[in-house]
Amino acid sequence: MTKTRIGILGYGNLGRGVELSCRQNDDLELVALFTRRNPASVKPLTEGVAVYSADDLAAHVNDVDVLILCGGSARDLPEQTPAYAGLFNVVDSFDTHANIPAHFANVDAAAKEGGKVAVISAGWDPGMFSLARLYANCILPEGADYTFWGRGVSQGHSDAIRRIEGVADARQYTVPVPAALDSVRAGRNPQLTTREKHTRECFVVAEEGADLAAIEKAIVEMPNYFADYDTTVMFISQEELDRDHAGIPHGGSVIRSGLTGENGEHRHVVEFSLKLDSNPEFTGSVLTACARAAHRLSREGQTGCKTMFDIAPAYLSSKSGEELRAEML
Amino acid sequence: MTKTRIGILGYGNLGRGVELSCRQNDDLELVALFTRRNPASVKPLTEGVAVYSADDLAAHVNDVDVLILCGGSARDLPEQTPAYAGLFNVVDSFDTHANIPAHFANVDAAAKEGGKVAVISAGWDPGMFSLARLYANCILPEGADYTFWGRGVSQGHSDAIRRIEGVADARQYTVPVPAALDSVRAGRNPQLTTREKHTRECFVVAEEGADLAAIEKAIVEMPNYFADYDTTVMFISQEELDRDHAGIPHGGSVIRSGLTGENGEHRHVVEFSLKLDSNPEFTGSVLTACARAAHRLSREGQTGCKTMFDIAPAYLSSKSGEELRAEML
Repeated sequence: MTKTRIGILGYGNLGRGVELSCRQNDDLELVALFTRRNPASVKPLTEGVAVYSADDLAAHVNDVDVLILCGGSARDLPEQTPAYAGLFNVVDSFDTHANIPAHFANVDAAAKEGGKVAVISAGWDPGMFSLARLYANCILPEGADYTFWGRGVSQGHSDAIRRIEGVADARQYTVPVPAALDSVRAGRNPQLTTREKHTRECFVVAEEGADLAAIEKAIVEMPNYFADYDTTVMFISQEELDRDHAGIPHGGSVIRSGLTGENGEHRHVVEFSLKLDSNPEFTGSVLTACARAAHRLSREGQTGCKTMFDIAPAYLSSKSGEELRAEML
Repeated sequence: MTKTRIGILGYGNLGRGVELSCRQNDDLELVALFTRRNPASVKPLTEGVAVYSADDLAAHVNDVDVLILCGGSARDLPEQTPAYAGLFNVVDSFDTHANIPAHFANVDAAAKEGGKVAVISAGWDPGMFSLARLYANCILPEGADYTFWGRGVSQGHSDAIRRIEGVADARQYTVPVPAALDSVRAGRNPQLTTREKHTRECFVVAEEGADLAAIEKAIVEMPNYFADYDTTVMFISQEELDRDHAGIPHGGSVIRSGLTGENGEHRHVVEFSLKLDSNPEFTGSVLTACARAAHRLSREGQTGCKTMFDIAPAYLSSKSGEELRAEML
């Protein structure tokens, strides 16, 4: 078996998630980490993995079959994915939904120019949740879609709290409203406002002498992030935060409720749900499966940008078609 | 827009489900029903649909883009799908899991010979449940799979009861055991026996003067069907059966529970579940989405047998790649 040689660009939580996933897949071999930090300062969990400067990526085009881009969607990926899609087969987890069409166009042009395959917006949302929406919509064209997130840590909301004056540290959980979930699961197709779908729980470490009331007000009234939600703020110590909120759990549910029959008399509820102890490790595991598919598509001569919508499910697996039909169909 | 012209072979519950699904999809047009009964005796729900004898199928190869085979897996499909895959693009719902490899080989040879595309084993299990198993296994290679069926009507078990002496009519429900489901959803990876996963509820109409105790004993001790389960038998009148048990609901859940991390310290639970008011109408709706994909693959020049594992999800949709990325990713 020829292994797919994986490179990782960006060694934060997601990069480590990809690294750990490579260890679970015999057909994938992590060969190099690329970092914008000083390579000598980066210690991989896996023995024998080389660490290079991101500046030297172009020197390694023949060592890596698929480069997995583990940077952020705000600043890193809009630049990096088009820049490297001409040199490597790449996979990213670009998740700014509104900008996906523009990102796709940029990456597609670069990948076609370089004769490479790029898979963008892989992960769980976008990614597995998108697949759940697509499949359910194809089967039930008459219906309604719902997506609930949580209970889980929102990095973006935690960061927003940390930027408030007097805040030393913070962790924000997005929590679906149980009554809303129950109503959707029962097929009642409710119309739900933002406030009716999710609540937000904030665990905040204040700096000594900070004005707690002012912090709480700044959080609950923050536009876009918190103003449209019922938000709970709890002040705790740094020790409590470190002890009780160190994990990065997440998850959620995609539900489609649709009708069939001569007069829409039969209701069907399709649900895909995730309960994840580690958001970056699960996301990293989706990215490695997509890297396998990217390599296979590239070997077949395909080029250009793909999403998980464009990848036949069997391409994500290390097993043969015969094995999959015998074991999983 | 050129519509995909659909033909249906076999006009029972599933055939009617396919017919009703065609009405919900503007890009699909049901053009003909083929039946082994007297065509004059078959009245389609849809005005203007021609009804022909199954014997005349070969005369209509130019009128139909995809023929959806709505017969049974025991006797019809093992013969029909290979027989017609050389003449038409076809879709079937062959669901005898153990015989899928042989069926695939037979259909693949016929479809390649005729230059057609055949999609077999489409529906929800096999079908959507198979996809849920495959995706979750690709992402979480270290874990355990669970499939629960129900609460729903098992046609095969209902038929088995009706064959018992003294039984006039019967309806059997397969019911997942709540404690088992809860344990799996909590990520406890239990080892479950057949008896611990599902119970069976039987609603039976006895013939006048029949020996009820003998019927009950014949049911609960029936090998393969009931002996390995906790089975409840309730005798009711034909009126009650017709009033309370006329529907064909079904559903279930596919759950994979897997570990990631440096030492498997993070658990993830992936669940795909269905609650279906009408098993044949939902299955029919999966078949029409697969018919759309079969037609598209055929127009691209592909041939041979496929399963849902081999079909990129976007092919199941009537929307363009741009629309899907903008609306569902």
